[in-house]
Amino acid sequence: MSTSAQLERLHVVLVATRNPLNIGAAARALSNFGFHHLRLVTPFEPAFREARSAVGASELLASAEVYESVADAVADCTLVVGTTAVRHRDLHHPLRRLEVGARLLRKHLASSRVALLFGSEKRGLSNEDLSHCHWLLRIPTCEENISMNLGQAVAVCLYEVVRDVKAAAEQEKRKVATAGEVERITKILLDALRASGYLDRRPVNDSEDRIRRLVRRLHLQAEDMDAWLGMLRQIVWKLGSEEREGH
Amino acid sequence: MSTSAQLERLHVVLVATRNPLNIGAAARALSNFGFHHLRLVTPFEPAFREARSAVGASELLASAEVYESVADAVADCTLVVGTTAVRHRDLHHPLRRLEVGARLLRKHLASSRVALLFGSEKRGLSNEDLSHCHWLLRIPTCEENISMNLGQAVAVCLYEVVRDVKAAAEQEKRKVATAGEVERITKILLDALRASGYLDRRPVNDSEDRIRRLVRRLHLQAEDMDAWLGMLRQIVWKLGSEEREGH
Repeated sequence: MSTSAQLERLHVVLVATRNPLNIGAAARALSNFGFHHLRLVTPFEPAFREARSAVGASELLASAEVYESVADAVADCTLVVGTTAVRHRDLHHPLRRLEVGARLLRKHLASSRVALLFGSEKRGLSNEDLSHCHWLLRIPTCEENISMNLGQAVAVCLYEVVRDVKAAAEQEKRKVATAGEVERITKILLDALRASGYLDRRPVNDSEDRIRRLVRRLHLQAEDMDAWLGMLRQIVWKLGSEEREGH
Repeated sequence: MSTSAQLERLHVVLVATRNPLNIGAAARALSNFGFHHLRLVTPFEPAFREARSAVGASELLASAEVYESVADAVADCTLVVGTTAVRHRDLHHPLRRLEVGARLLRKHLASSRVALLFGSEKRGLSNEDLSHCHWLLRIPTCEENISMNLGQAVAVCLYEVVRDVKAAAEQEKRKVATAGEVERITKILLDALRASGYLDRRPVNDSEDRIRRLVRRLHLQAEDMDAWLGMLRQIVWKLGSEEREGH
């Protein structure tokens, strides 16, 4: 995931939001994660006006739609999911943790519209709001402080919908140095140690092997090889020149 | 994951933060996801004072530590990870997407302290700040709007660190109705349809089978069975009583 068609199909619905900063933050999160559709059900009117006129208010906020009821706001969606911080308020609804809930949501987005509801800052979604939902989603917050800031909750939910381990792993092409490159470093380090007298002062049978192992443990990156070679060469050269100047 | 010892080992470091709301939001996100340690490097002084004195400012904020430099703030950590929105500012650092980066972070937290750095709202982390980092993390925002609100970015990163698919799946014990329960519903629905004359009006050979299949497609939940049985029984009873009163 996620194709742009899927992102197009998600409608974030803020119900009875009071704080303009939260409306703005929700809009920003949608934009960050590539979503486009924000709906507001009876927002506190001055808050919505303020959010819309804020500096940097997005196109997304300008095109946000306002509805009189949850029923109207979700009418064209085939899956309606509510968010809640509460674990057991006699929920009468299947309650899913975000990690698995978002997966179902994504599946649904492959073919149809989904509404994702967020309640007001103080009270969350009312029982009447919840009765429009097929199931509920909760962010796995810890027992001691379950209640998240609205803007942050929206961001976390949307992140989980677009998160993509495969794409992330793709980027992890580790450019570790080859054995040959590591051996070049080892050789020149040994030159430096010899020239500095280090090897003479610590005459161990397998001292070269020890140093070879030490270098291997550095996990040298391919892109850093030139820098390390340059530094070591300069040191070897300087040691040699001191030698040449004689002492 | 995540054991409380692991959560104890993560230190969120806010560098040169200017907005008190963002400091408060970051603290709230730590608290929501069970983390305890917030460090601030040269925060804008009035912002920090305001955040600390805000109504509902957490213990966590009260115990936040202030440092003069990034070097001081990360000195006791063995892994230092910076966050960035930028994809290629000649980063000179391995850049990992959050999905895989958080995994490495968790591994490290199993035994040692990690510092997770967030830069200022306007500029993010400076090159000097970044030079203290082992690698960088980026949230997979979309190309058109890569820059997240600071409080939301902290929340998303911490969520990814604690997210736990296994625990989430555990909760998904679906209580689907048994075949026996579904058949009871089917029988009583057939009674109602018979009593209402529906079955006589649509005489199809396999009409009972059709209705049986329809009911199976409802995915009835175990906990909803009593309610459905009650409704249908009442309807059947009423239909019977109308019959008895004769017409």
